[in-house]
Amino acid sequence: MLHFDTDYMEGAHPKVMQRLVETNLEQTTGYGSDDYCKTAKDLVRKTCGDESLDVHFLVGGTQTNSTVIDALLHHHEGVLAAETAHINVHESGAIESCGHKVLTLPSYEGKVCPDDVQAYIDNFYADETYEHMVAPGMLYISFPTEYGTLYSKKELRELHDICLEAKIPMFVDGARLGYGLMSDACDITLPELAQLCDIFYIGGTKVGLLFGECVVARKGLLQHFFPLIKQHGALLAKGRLLGVQFGTLFTDDLYFKIARHAIEMAMKLKAGFVQAGYQLFLDSPTNQQFFVLPNEVMDRLAEFCSFEIWGTRGETKTTVRFVTSWATTEDAVNKLLENVGASSL
Amino acid sequence: MLHFDTDYMEGAHPKVMQRLVETNLEQTTGYGSDDYCKTAKDLVRKTCGDESLDVHFLVGGTQTNSTVIDALLHHHEGVLAAETAHINVHESGAIESCGHKVLTLPSYEGKVCPDDVQAYIDNFYADETYEHMVAPGMLYISFPTEYGTLYSKKELRELHDICLEAKIPMFVDGARLGYGLMSDACDITLPELAQLCDIFYIGGTKVGLLFGECVVARKGLLQHFFPLIKQHGALLAKGRLLGVQFGTLFTDDLYFKIARHAIEMAMKLKAGFVQAGYQLFLDSPTNQQFFVLPNEVMDRLAEFCSFEIWGTRGETKTTVRFVTSWATTEDAVNKLLENVGASSL
Amino acid sequence: MLHFDTDYMEGAHPKVMQRLVETNLEQTTGYGSDDYCKTAKDLVRKTCGDESLDVHFLVGGTQTNSTVIDALLHHHEGVLAAETAHINVHESGAIESCGHKVLTLPSYEGKVCPDDVQAYIDNFYADETYEHMVAPGMLYISFPTEYGTLYSKKELRELHDICLEAKIPMFVDGARLGYGLMSDACDITLPELAQLCDIFYIGGTKVGLLFGECVVARKGLLQHFFPLIKQHGALLAKGRLLGVQFGTLFTDDLYFKIARHAIEMAMKLKAGFVQAGYQLFLDSPTNQQFFVLPNEVMDRLAEFCSFEIWGTRGETKTTVRFVTSWATTEDAVNKLLENVGASSL
Amino acid sequence: MLHFDTDYMEGAHPKVMQRLVETNLEQTTGYGSDDYCKTAKDLVRKTCGDESLDVHFLVGGTQTNSTVIDALLHHHEGVLAAETAHINVHESGAIESCGHKVLTLPSYEGKVCPDDVQAYIDNFYADETYEHMVAPGMLYISFPTEYGTLYSKKELRELHDICLEAKIPMFVDGARLGYGLMSDACDITLPELAQLCDIFYIGGTKVGLLFGECVVARKGLLQHFFPLIKQHGALLAKGRLLGVQFGTLFTDDLYFKIARHAIEMAMKLKAGFVQAGYQLFLDSPTNQQFFVLPNEVMDRLAEFCSFEIWGTRGETKTTVRFVTSWATTEDAVNKLLENVGASSL
Repeated sequence: MLHFDTDYMEGAHPKVMQRLVETNLEQTTGYGSDDYCKTAKDLVRKTCGDESLDVHFLVGGTQTNSTVIDALLHHHEGVLAAETAHINVHESGAIESCGHKVLTLPSYEGKVCPDDVQAYIDNFYADETYEHMVAPGMLYISFPTEYGTLYSKKELRELHDICLEAKIPMFVDGARLGYGLMSDACDITLPELAQLCDIFYIGGTKVGLLFGECVVARKGLLQHFFPLIKQHGALLAKGRLLGVQFGTLFTDDLYFKIARHAIEMAMKLKAGFVQAGYQLFLDSPTNQQFFVLPNEVMDRLAEFCSFEIWGTRGETKTTVRFVTSWATTEDAVNKLLENVGASSL
Repeated sequence: MLHFDTDYMEGAHPKVMQRLVETNLEQTTGYGSDDYCKTAKDLVRKTCGDESLDVHFLVGGTQTNSTVIDALLHHHEGVLAAETAHINVHESGAIESCGHKVLTLPSYEGKVCPDDVQAYIDNFYADETYEHMVAPGMLYISFPTEYGTLYSKKELRELHDICLEAKIPMFVDGARLGYGLMSDACDITLPELAQLCDIFYIGGTKVGLLFGECVVARKGLLQHFFPLIKQHGALLAKGRLLGVQFGTLFTDDLYFKIARHAIEMAMKLKAGFVQAGYQLFLDSPTNQQFFVLPNEVMDRLAEFCSFEIWGTRGETKTTVRFVTSWATTEDAVNKLLENVGASSL
Repeated sequence: MLHFDTDYMEGAHPKVMQRLVETNLEQTTGYGSDDYCKTAKDLVRKTCGDESLDVHFLVGGTQTNSTVIDALLHHHEGVLAAETAHINVHESGAIESCGHKVLTLPSYEGKVCPDDVQAYIDNFYADETYEHMVAPGMLYISFPTEYGTLYSKKELRELHDICLEAKIPMFVDGARLGYGLMSDACDITLPELAQLCDIFYIGGTKVGLLFGECVVARKGLLQHFFPLIKQHGALLAKGRLLGVQFGTLFTDDLYFKIARHAIEMAMKLKAGFVQAGYQLFLDSPTNQQFFVLPNEVMDRLAEFCSFEIWGTRGETKTTVRFVTSWATTEDAVNKLLENVGASSL
Repeated sequence: MLHFDTDYMEGAHPKVMQRLVETNLEQTTGYGSDDYCKTAKDLVRKTCGDESLDVHFLVGGTQTNSTVIDALLHHHEGVLAAETAHINVHESGAIESCGHKVLTLPSYEGKVCPDDVQAYIDNFYADETYEHMVAPGMLYISFPTEYGTLYSKKELRELHDICLEAKIPMFVDGARLGYGLMSDACDITLPELAQLCDIFYIGGTKVGLLFGECVVARKGLLQHFFPLIKQHGALLAKGRLLGVQFGTLFTDDLYFKIARHAIEMAMKLKAGFVQAGYQLFLDSPTNQQFFVLPNEVMDRLAEFCSFEIWGTRGETKTTVRFVTSWATTEDAVNKLLENVGASSL
């Protein structure tokens, strides 16, 4: 059986695992006050090219989204996001459980459009009854999006300019950030991203770690964040596990190298599917690939390969998602393509 | 200056006011434990034709919506509502501030469509990832809607059947209920409404009272509701004010009579506007009337009459709302129509 | 039957009621945007001797406490209060339902001690683990307290100095403020109170109004308070009802005069009880009077007079509360004392 | 430098680490749906001697407390706990941030007294105003407590009987459960504990794992717990990490063996300190040991050994905590005692 369900099916990259083993019996203080965290934060700042950035480590993505958004919003504010945003669809209402509304914008293959953001803000304040409505208090986007798509540098700059003008922070969910940055379609670097938004996170869970998300914020943006992390149940007792992992990930460009591998596997997979006559749902440049498959093809594939049905099964055709990761082997992709190619309809 | 901004511009109906004055110096216990509340609740049950109903008095509409919805939803659930629903747009995020997500459905002149509700529920449970999503835990509709429109008995029955099948309560926001029931287009009675949903409220603020909303619920649906009302800051110390007011409103059909008057005034206003060549935004059968006016007409009207801009001012045309109420005088409507008619473009 | 249960058993002072009747059919805009509210706010500012103060009207006490406290606290902060504070005991967890912890201090007849406040703050920051604890983010006191007691000017100044030093706001719950200010034991005026704290409210529900609490805050302290009031379900549609009522209350010193009457009645009642040999639970200088009664005396009194059992019935003796108000008649007090005096044990 | 600050200074037990390495590159589905979790849950059920129990894995202690308590309480209810309880003191208000009040009981060396629990419940319902108060909705205790103390089987049974009678669940925080069960002073087994409460958790973070807490609940007690875990940000993407770890911990009694080691080290440490003339703060039978040290002794010890100041530094004496764990070496304890013994005052 081949598995392309998602990018968190394995444990950690062997180098990360090795460091966890090597440091396992060392004694450190808790909650991220250890030297491994300190070193890792310095590495992240250095890799981001800005020594002034604030860096925090959390455990998982939903947790990071809800803690960061809770930290940034005032009571009367909500978070602007695409209607397909992870925070709006797949986090069991975590944002609302913290008291905040997700203000939805149209989604274009997972992306929001700068004009829509501007119009939302303009219309809000032009409405005589706006004080009875939830104010747009921040912008959330994901990079790559839940559909594997990417914003261009120009789009990011436009979005950020709108946010700066409106004096609201722009937050980038980078659960799959590495897979975005290493895409051939990406025209920004990590240091550029750090200047094109106010706060973002570098996802570790899906890019080489057992778990771990690294929040990077403009200095001073996050006030009293430590107790808030604790309050959200997001403070890891053995915080050094995050320091050791991220420290390894940002040594010798490991993060970028393994992310690049996933992209290469994804492009090979996409090319093979297209060659075999399969229909793209959309043309994703990152590690998530979406196809619209006749149900009989899908059912046949499911006999030797696992993947995710995207939404619900259609009457005759169904959209599916195949995902590669740092751990995807070329052998697995080859086997998949051999079997796919042999049996197109 | 004539005022058609909304239906809560005056105080209470004179008969209500008179009873408040008459009872003013009587001494009663607080928090709704007095005899006026008991009597009024009995009157409401009787008028609704079902002695088994639970009745509670609260102060305002947003308060009632957030308290009721908070009472009915489990943690993992949200409330289905039209995207134009008052709870989704004009309550400053009150529902979310209690931890709950508003799950939006397409709005058809303020109404939800039974097929959309059914599809939402079906698709939810057909999605493999549904446990990561907010479950549809109740249905909220308004009657009349925020656009003045009404559900037919058939539509209400379809919606309720879907809810019964899905084992989720159906809640009807009746902030303007009287203006719905007394419309010529309405094909249900109050006792019928009480059986066509699980919980609703009879709005007093907009129909004759100083303030007050009367929640009517299927017996046993609301558990531990008293402390929840208190917790929401919705428990009036001098609860008897609600008992006295609703007791008067449901004596000698006062509620229905004064609501009927508002409908007659609204129909006259609509007819006059249409006759004068104005364009309907939609054809509302209740006390809220919507027109699309050229901006120059709107500006001229604004010189002698107040009304509400619906959303934001358009570039050349703007949608506006004119509202009548129990207190609208025929004289005011006549004066409005005289001036409207004299100056059509 | 005589009633001394509490101070919200009647409606409004006749002058207040009269103004509500007189203005009943006037048309105003909603939500406090009317001229009655504007005028009343000016009157409050003038009576408080500080034109720079921010003034807001809300409906009830629990609602006001939870809305104000929610507005003032950051996520990692809680509110310091006596363990007997209304917010800690009798508000059904309203503060916690908004996400905030009540940090309790010892209660001395309802009052907190400045030394305890200082010690709490000092110990908090001296604790190595303080970032895992809820920070003292504001101080809540009541004036008079739930036990009818009063802070001296010196105590208030000490408390405020501690708060200023710690950079946290001091909030005074004035649900019964008039009954405090008009006590012979009170050594502050309303303008002095306004400078001895950062925010307080003038309770109307218990001092002459149908309902209504008037929040008075240091300029700029409350940010974006209007949508927060709405979100809390605390925004009255017919806001002018609050303007009309408070406007009347602060015309010709009505508030102070009627509060003074209640104090005189309370002092007469206390003197009579003491003369009849009853035991004071504590020596309250305001309108709430507490006695420890043998159960047989209590049961006998209950035959012709209602009052409140304070907590739970004791085995042989029980603490009870008798409350006077602006509406208490001298006749009622006389009758009570006649019957009390005739049957001491 | 020797370290006795706490019991989470190292990584995982080597056997646990080994299994994580061995399984690292296996592919599994996420969120705990894998076979490792299934197997581990079966092992836990078997070790608890009750196949009907519900088992869930979460990441950390504060997270587990807030998620479980949020799942169990109704809106009008709070959680009874000792005033020294971890949830009341050291979780940054996590319980309140979910909307719930901690109802505090006197603490006797960290324990609550059954009589106090009974009295709280009785007094609550005997109070005429109880519907304005937060109802006792569950009981939280810790085993061992934050002071290292243990409840006897008799005490647990009394507490549970009170809860059963009051129809509220009893929840045992077992962050250090192994260190309680393996104490010489403990008179219950794990299967007995499972029957002496309604829900508890087996702490892994402090007893051999990298992280992980295992919630064990009476069947059917936790409804819709999966989406609630997700909503709380407590759902680990690579859930199998918890399955692998707990599976190892409950194979060949590893959990009990390593916990026993910590107890032996703690008893040796305590005996050595007592012999050296140090004063016990209280006589703890588990892995946390508390001493009251003259400040000069404390400062001297701090030169070669780290430990925790318990609360704040006193003027002349300070309470300190020394903690052993599964990872504490006998060599470290010997070195500590050599240096302690050589320099008593």
